[in-house]
Amino acid sequence: MKTMKAIRFKNRQVITEEAPLPEISENEALVKVSMAGICGTDTEIFEGYARFSGIAGHEMAGVVCRAPGQPGLEGKAVTADINCGCGVCPWCTAGDPRHCQNREVIGIRGRNGAFAEYCAVPAKNLHEIPQGLGTEQAVFAEPLAAALEITQQVHVVNTDKIAILGDGKMGLLSAMALVHASRRVTLIGRHARKLAIAESAGIATVQTAAEEPAQALRSRMGLFDLVVDATGAAEGIQTALCLVRPEGTVVVKTTSRNPSRIDLSTVVVDEIRILGSRCGDIALALRCLERGWVDVSALVEKIYPFYRFEQAFAHARQKGSLKILVDFEKKTGQGGY
Amino acid sequence: MKTMKAIRFKNRQVITEEAPLPEISENEALVKVSMAGICGTDTEIFEGYARFSGIAGHEMAGVVCRAPGQPGLEGKAVTADINCGCGVCPWCTAGDPRHCQNREVIGIRGRNGAFAEYCAVPAKNLHEIPQGLGTEQAVFAEPLAAALEITQQVHVVNTDKIAILGDGKMGLLSAMALVHASRRVTLIGRHARKLAIAESAGIATVQTAAEEPAQALRSRMGLFDLVVDATGAAEGIQTALCLVRPEGTVVVKTTSRNPSRIDLSTVVVDEIRILGSRCGDIALALRCLERGWVDVSALVEKIYPFYRFEQAFAHARQKGSLKILVDFEKKTGQGGY
Ligand SMILES: [Zn+2]
Ligand SMILES: [Zn+2]
Repeated sequence: MKTMKAIRFKNRQVITEEAPLPEISENEALVKVSMAGICGTDTEIFEGYARFSGIAGHEMAGVVCRAPGQPGLEGKAVTADINCGCGVCPWCTAGDPRHCQNREVIGIRGRNGAFAEYCAVPAKNLHEIPQGLGTEQAVFAEPLAAALEITQQVHVVNTDKIAILGDGKMGLLSAMALVHASRRVTLIGRHARKLAIAESAGIATVQTAAEEPAQALRSRMGLFDLVVDATGAAEGIQTALCLVRPEGTVVVKTTSRNPSRIDLSTVVVDEIRILGSRCGDIALALRCLERGWVDVSALVEKIYPFYRFEQAFAHARQKGSLKILVDFEKKTGQGGY
Repeated sequence: MKTMKAIRFKNRQVITEEAPLPEISENEALVKVSMAGICGTDTEIFEGYARFSGIAGHEMAGVVCRAPGQPGLEGKAVTADINCGCGVCPWCTAGDPRHCQNREVIGIRGRNGAFAEYCAVPAKNLHEIPQGLGTEQAVFAEPLAAALEITQQVHVVNTDKIAILGDGKMGLLSAMALVHASRRVTLIGRHARKLAIAESAGIATVQTAAEEPAQALRSRMGLFDLVVDATGAAEGIQTALCLVRPEGTVVVKTTSRNPSRIDLSTVVVDEIRILGSRCGDIALALRCLERGWVDVSALVEKIYPFYRFEQAFAHARQKGSLKILVDFEKKTGQGGY
């Protein structure tokens, strides 16, 4: 039996194990992983979120080794849509398996992910990486798609006054996505280093401190048509509700382990819309990356070789770290790592 | 100085006092109140909500005594839009003073209401009661407008599967409003007597018990496209979130004194929309009442004469009571009260 190296989370430990090579069905492809990104959801899974016991990893770029049903894919560089629908329910037949009630989600629910040398992916979930787009950019397709999902849910126009709360990875990506839809986007965060990345991308920023009350932010910035909560904190929603105008929209882009306390009377009196936002369209994200509309290179904090996954993951778990990538091509410790 | 009888809430007491007759400006009308409804918001104000110390009462029908700017209104039977905007802000100039940041709200914020023999109302806020529509129906224009507001915020179509949670006044009115927009409306409540009112109006109902978990309701009813939280309870939103389908809508129609605990990860993963909903269009409500699309007569629990306001209010504060009306025409205790 052929085997591969794969990562498992066990009792809050990162274990590198020898696992069987994935078997693939006729409709699947075997992808050799080139690069994977570590996401907040992975660190949540590490902590027990979603009680997922498989191989995690859902931000990937790789090369197709075998695809019995679509041999034309073999040898192609690809990334993947992580939502694998049942194929027969109304969501799936309408072409949007993201909400299929029987879905598997690569690296999150019922299906192994990309923290391994090989990964089985339904062939229909694969997207060819456009020529000229580097692996280190393409691996951002999944999180960028999630950021762009905001524009697919809300009709954003150029005069909309928009605030993004939180200068973490998802906050920065959301700002980078929205700055093309409106000329009035402001990223509100606490870290000068991260706000500088947004400034370089042409995004206005405002620095705040943990102690600053939402009311004070509101006084100095006024109200917004659209506020994106990308704080990852249970209290983020209350700040967002304080900053949004009557009949405005709050998009909840990040989740928290803790339930949020929300004063719904504000929501009712001001007739506010709160909108949850999750995965998006990989093809849309790849197009943005290919055309250079979004340049994610400044979001990469560090690239580790796969054999140093444990250190990579520890780094990703550090509060405030930006994107940690894992490179499966590097077989030795040499070369700038 | 002319005076009138008026109600004040002081230290959780209902006080009938002799108050000066309202002075009116050129743009206002003096309305002699014929009938007023007692609403949940009034009982909240009684408890201290919104720190309102004026004369409460925002559901009214009356007759115009004087309207210097619009003498044509004099003698007309009217009801009123309660939101009095500044007239110059973007909300007001766009014709929707409901969200004017400087608004007064009759009987709720900065402006005396209808629990008095006379009430001053901006003339532009008055709506003539259509001929043939009884006072006891017209006095429902304000709460019915609030129920109809759901249809102004959400595009409801005939195949939408809709649940209304809560068989109180607002739940019943919301069901009566929505049953004309969709053929799949279900009112979910705890009181056989109230559910029977909905059944009489052609609305499907499901009886539940306080002990029944939301998951059990979900198992027996499936998921809904639209769920209206009219429970008036802080936990209502969690039940609503459990019953709504992915990408579905939860309308929050009632508020609670207590903040709600919400698991936002459900909202994000299922990309749910939560929409606050408050006041609506009085003209729309009057049209529905006039055409008989909504018959509110079964919602009247009891009509008290004004001089028995204290008892009326005590009755309205009883948990589970339906609409209590106050009749200002009845000057004695005779006549069926
Ligand atoms: Zn499906
Ligand atoms: Zn105004």
